[in-house]
Amino acid sequence: MRVYLDNNATTKIDPMVTVKMQPFLGEFYGNPNSLHQYGMEVRPHLNEALGYMYDALNVPDEDDILVTSCATESNNTVIKGVYFKHILKNPEKNHIVTTSVEHPCILETLHFLSDNGLVDVTYVDVDENGGIKAEDIKNAVTDKTVLITMMWANNETGMIFPVEEVSEFAKEKGILFHTDAVQAIGKVPVDLTKVDVDYLTFSAHKFHGPKGIGGLYVKKGKNLPNLLHGGEQMGGKRAGTLNVASIVGMGLAMKQAAGHIEKMNTEVRRLRDKLEDALSTIPDTIIVGPREQRTPNTLLISLKGIEGEAMLWDLNKKGIAASTGSACASESLEANPVMTAIGEDPELAHTAMRLSLSRFTTEDEIDYVIDAFIKAAERLRSISSTYAYTNEVG
Amino acid sequence: MRVYLDNNATTKIDPMVTVKMQPFLGEFYGNPNSLHQYGMEVRPHLNEALGYMYDALNVPDEDDILVTSCATESNNTVIKGVYFKHILKNPEKNHIVTTSVEHPCILETLHFLSDNGLVDVTYVDVDENGGIKAEDIKNAVTDKTVLITMMWANNETGMIFPVEEVSEFAKEKGILFHTDAVQAIGKVPVDLTKVDVDYLTFSAHKFHGPKGIGGLYVKKGKNLPNLLHGGEQMGGKRAGTLNVASIVGMGLAMKQAAGHIEKMNTEVRRLRDKLEDALSTIPDTIIVGPREQRTPNTLLISLKGIEGEAMLWDLNKKGIAASTGSACASESLEANPVMTAIGEDPELAHTAMRLSLSRFTTEDEIDYVIDAFIKAAERLRSISSTYAYTNEVG
Repeated sequence: MRVYLDNNATTKIDPMVTVKMQPFLGEFYGNPNSLHQYGMEVRPHLNEALGYMYDALNVPDEDDILVTSCATESNNTVIKGVYFKHILKNPEKNHIVTTSVEHPCILETLHFLSDNGLVDVTYVDVDENGGIKAEDIKNAVTDKTVLITMMWANNETGMIFPVEEVSEFAKEKGILFHTDAVQAIGKVPVDLTKVDVDYLTFSAHKFHGPKGIGGLYVKKGKNLPNLLHGGEQMGGKRAGTLNVASIVGMGLAMKQAAGHIEKMNTEVRRLRDKLEDALSTIPDTIIVGPREQRTPNTLLISLKGIEGEAMLWDLNKKGIAASTGSACASESLEANPVMTAIGEDPELAHTAMRLSLSRFTTEDEIDYVIDAFIKAAERLRSISSTYAYTNEVG
Repeated sequence: MRVYLDNNATTKIDPMVTVKMQPFLGEFYGNPNSLHQYGMEVRPHLNEALGYMYDALNVPDEDDILVTSCATESNNTVIKGVYFKHILKNPEKNHIVTTSVEHPCILETLHFLSDNGLVDVTYVDVDENGGIKAEDIKNAVTDKTVLITMMWANNETGMIFPVEEVSEFAKEKGILFHTDAVQAIGKVPVDLTKVDVDYLTFSAHKFHGPKGIGGLYVKKGKNLPNLLHGGEQMGGKRAGTLNVASIVGMGLAMKQAAGHIEKMNTEVRRLRDKLEDALSTIPDTIIVGPREQRTPNTLLISLKGIEGEAMLWDLNKKGIAASTGSACASESLEANPVMTAIGEDPELAHTAMRLSLSRFTTEDEIDYVIDAFIKAAERLRSISSTYAYTNEVG
């Protein structure tokens, strides 16, 4: 049996999406900016796809949804755009507030700018549950703050951050607010009539769309300089020949994701909770964050005395895919950054395992994983010197 | 009959490429940075694809080929990277030399930086043939020049620019040299053991690969800061989850393109020349640039008294796709910038038509186009007030 529980890293493309993309990898190859029939015949499909995206976020078309190549591009666009538009000309107001557990594409972009002395950044830490307190964000803001960037939900723990409260606060203060909603779309309702953001990032491959395509929502009047300057695509706001097949795919994937929110919060949540309840029976485990404050598909668990990589490998041999943290850094065997931020026993940072489900996950798969996981934990603890040692001193 | 002669805007995906991509839009959906089997099983395919790219450019693997989302991203990466790495810290040396006929993604990026007072740019004009004289580039260089960026071949005329001579000059002077080779790959030999560049841009959809994927060659030791900061993909040099399907597609497309250089320079060139000879018999036409100095698939023709858009529309009604210039700007009915740069009669800038063939173009198609084109020219001239007027005064 093969079971894929690494859906926060990437997801299987919905087969309907793959089918929808096919014509645009074949005969419908025109450049939509061309004036001839090859160009014109693809445009209605692009418009349909963009319509699905506007609907999914519940935003009017006076706002922009820029199609990008990935969430990384969207996040770089916002942060570097704010630098070029606001900070370059007014370096007195160069302060950005974020959290210490953002995705590397936020953190590394901020490090790059601050290492060059161009911005000043405050990184707000998570609390003992892996959550962010809105109060802590508010306290980090100064009169020099131009931007708050905070993810909607965390990729490793699934913890949902207080975007609504922080967005209202930002608006009151006249501070720009960006949220990386990569882990929220398709998992929790993302309705921008209820949460008032200036910029929002999403990525198709996190919700059963293709890789290599993402988006950036930009509220009307909050345009930033391009990250990619060039041709007049996307109203001149994101240059580069339009990736028609993937845009069409992302549109349908987003429509499907929005349509499956209820299933995610009932059936998938039930399966996640079943898995969580079963794994909680293993002695000396920690599961991060109250489950009702998490996205319904995610579970981050630490088993004392068991290296995350060892567990990963045992599960992998049984056909189960999980992860020890963000795939974007998973080739380096570093301590899990969220665990480190939570500040638990440093050993825990090396014992974290993330299990993330999708709407394609079945009950049989979860039963199989429960059995395999518990057996693997027993086997690894029986050969773990740290676990024995911990017990002796404990 | 449908005939696609707009291959400099975008190309049909080679059906072999589409087939090759399929598994990665289906069951092989793992994130290649994941440590489990879903991730690991896609890696050999990525390595194979990258191998094809290294082979196509004839470069050693100590150099980098960064996969990007498009040529626009590659070109922005180089110019903004040079700004952040070299100019930001040493603003005394902030001069960039380029040509006035680069793609908008070069020109707009330079405009953005120079409008912000960050760089100083010299735009070298084309000569009467639409070519660039190496001497003019050399004369534009000052002791403040850090970068020369010049396309390998022009998108509108097909004119091949003196990259070899300019790259040697740049090396002597210790100036970085970048070439946008988007219109060269698959059309003329691009062998980097013969032309010594620091950076080279390419784009899959120009050589029968998918849209939304491109590349940037970076010579060893010439690394630049990321345009996309984030995860550790591409050795940390271009963040963002790898677009496996499209990378695999681009690899095969590049191998196929390299393998068809001879066909392009024999059969496709013969068809282009046949078309060119036939259209040259239309009175009062100008074809830009000596054909032996052009890529073998391209032809830019001006017919006095006939608006490019009118001709485009007539051809389109007969199923023929051509363009009046770069697709990246074709929604705006501006004067053709190369024609403007050449400095001929300003009317000509509005009468330019680009016809660009591919290795899939057939002789039957060319015969059909010759007939349709000549008839359209006759019809449009018979109703053209400018053409009659021109004849009267001439």
